[in-house]
Amino acid sequence: MSDKSIVEKYRRRVERSGSLVCVGLDSEFEKLPGRFASAAFPQFEFNRGVIDATAEFVSSFKPNMAFYEARGAQGISELQMTADYLRTTYPDIVTICDAKRADIGNTNRGYVSSIFDVMGFDCVTLHPYLGREALLPFLGREDKASIILCRTSNPGAGEMQDLDVGGRPLWERVAEKVSGEWNVRGNCMLVVGATYPIEMRRVRELAPDVTLLVPGVGAQGGDVQAVVEAGLDARGEGLMISSSRGVIFSDDPGAAARALRDEINAAREAVYAAR
Amino acid sequence: MSDKSIVEKYRRRVERSGSLVCVGLDSEFEKLPGRFASAAFPQFEFNRGVIDATAEFVSSFKPNMAFYEARGAQGISELQMTADYLRTTYPDIVTICDAKRADIGNTNRGYVSSIFDVMGFDCVTLHPYLGREALLPFLGREDKASIILCRTSNPGAGEMQDLDVGGRPLWERVAEKVSGEWNVRGNCMLVVGATYPIEMRRVRELAPDVTLLVPGVGAQGGDVQAVVEAGLDARGEGLMISSSRGVIFSDDPGAAARALRDEINAAREAVYAAR
Repeated sequence: MSDKSIVEKYRRRVERSGSLVCVGLDSEFEKLPGRFASAAFPQFEFNRGVIDATAEFVSSFKPNMAFYEARGAQGISELQMTADYLRTTYPDIVTICDAKRADIGNTNRGYVSSIFDVMGFDCVTLHPYLGREALLPFLGREDKASIILCRTSNPGAGEMQDLDVGGRPLWERVAEKVSGEWNVRGNCMLVVGATYPIEMRRVRELAPDVTLLVPGVGAQGGDVQAVVEAGLDARGEGLMISSSRGVIFSDDPGAAARALRDEINAAREAVYAAR
Repeated sequence: MSDKSIVEKYRRRVERSGSLVCVGLDSEFEKLPGRFASAAFPQFEFNRGVIDATAEFVSSFKPNMAFYEARGAQGISELQMTADYLRTTYPDIVTICDAKRADIGNTNRGYVSSIFDVMGFDCVTLHPYLGREALLPFLGREDKASIILCRTSNPGAGEMQDLDVGGRPLWERVAEKVSGEWNVRGNCMLVVGATYPIEMRRVRELAPDVTLLVPGVGAQGGDVQAVVEAGLDARGEGLMISSSRGVIFSDDPGAAARALRDEINAAREAVYAAR
């Protein structure tokens, strides 16, 4: 694996910060505090405050594109400003565009260009349904990471993801394929929701070295202790545990991010002690 | 089904125009003719010319969002201008935002807002992997249509979509679920690539009344005759047959759209004659 890989960037940042926290910049315009109503760039200015308050306690930031697209061209500009600010001010923190994209073949080049090159994110989240061949424009980028949806955090995730494929659920096949043939360049990760720790333990068995992006702690009800027990890799890392609303809309985002870091690290200590 | 439904809008337009053609406005900036390089809004101005030249020969237009996002906020503005132009100038033509989105629950509201309300599209394309529960913000809109990816047109579509679920491929389960429990409001459609006519015939059996969006004729190699034989519904309609590059980058887009309409209608006549 190249030193320039995003997996290596993430490991270096975890080592330096001692944190597995990802802060989700789901900065829904309607939920911003009133003082941002008159700002020139409300979503960006809100984000900058959250980023500065939480940066020392995190290893990654993850804006969800839906909350920016909702405001049309203005929101996209503010997402770009957010990405630029992260890249220039905190260059060692991993940036994830939670876009959940996937189109066929060359059409993806539009998304590759906007997300990886114009906005300059390190990682993007992707749907698996079209298959590896469709996603090659993403997967071919050794300097970036593709994070594939495997087991999502929503209550109805099982409708498709639990379908029985030869005696095993579909999400297991996704985990195997992505960690195997899709990952020849070492630039794939998987999304596994914090609300499904049993499935997470199995994903960790099938994909021992793959970094997992874990949404769903906090407002969605995922349990940090269960996530850490199920999902740590052999190095005691390999997780990006993401909280959004619970951090960014708290009265003190820095304190909330620090508390989540500490809660995760206490759980890591307990796992080390038991190993 | 309400008179206001998009399915009804589509049927009225097909009746009036006698066309099953969908023109894909995949207006990749780098491929635009040189004269647009100095235009203030190159993608919009290009689209306006294509729309005016082809409108009488089509029943729907389908911009793929990737080609606009590639230019950041500027591209999103020009997609908005394109949507506004379509809605005000050709209000009886169905508009499809080929965005291939899908996030969980309330996060989708950002996409619902931008695609259905701010830009005002009639339809959006969606990934099925997160399940019906995740997509309720889209599916709850009776005045709009959700077009779910079932069998995509790319060569590697089978990697996931052909996985054997209880003796049948995954795409069959998607077709059944979407045409059944997902479609309680009569506002769902399915994507089936023109490159897979055998699968299309089976989808038509499983979902006899569902309109199919069919990309992949023209540059991707799908055969019009095979698509029409496999996919027409009992009314001799039920298809949105989409061509993009083959129409919009031709020297005479109007003639290209008319030729596709006529080729489709000749195939429809042959099917009627044989029934």
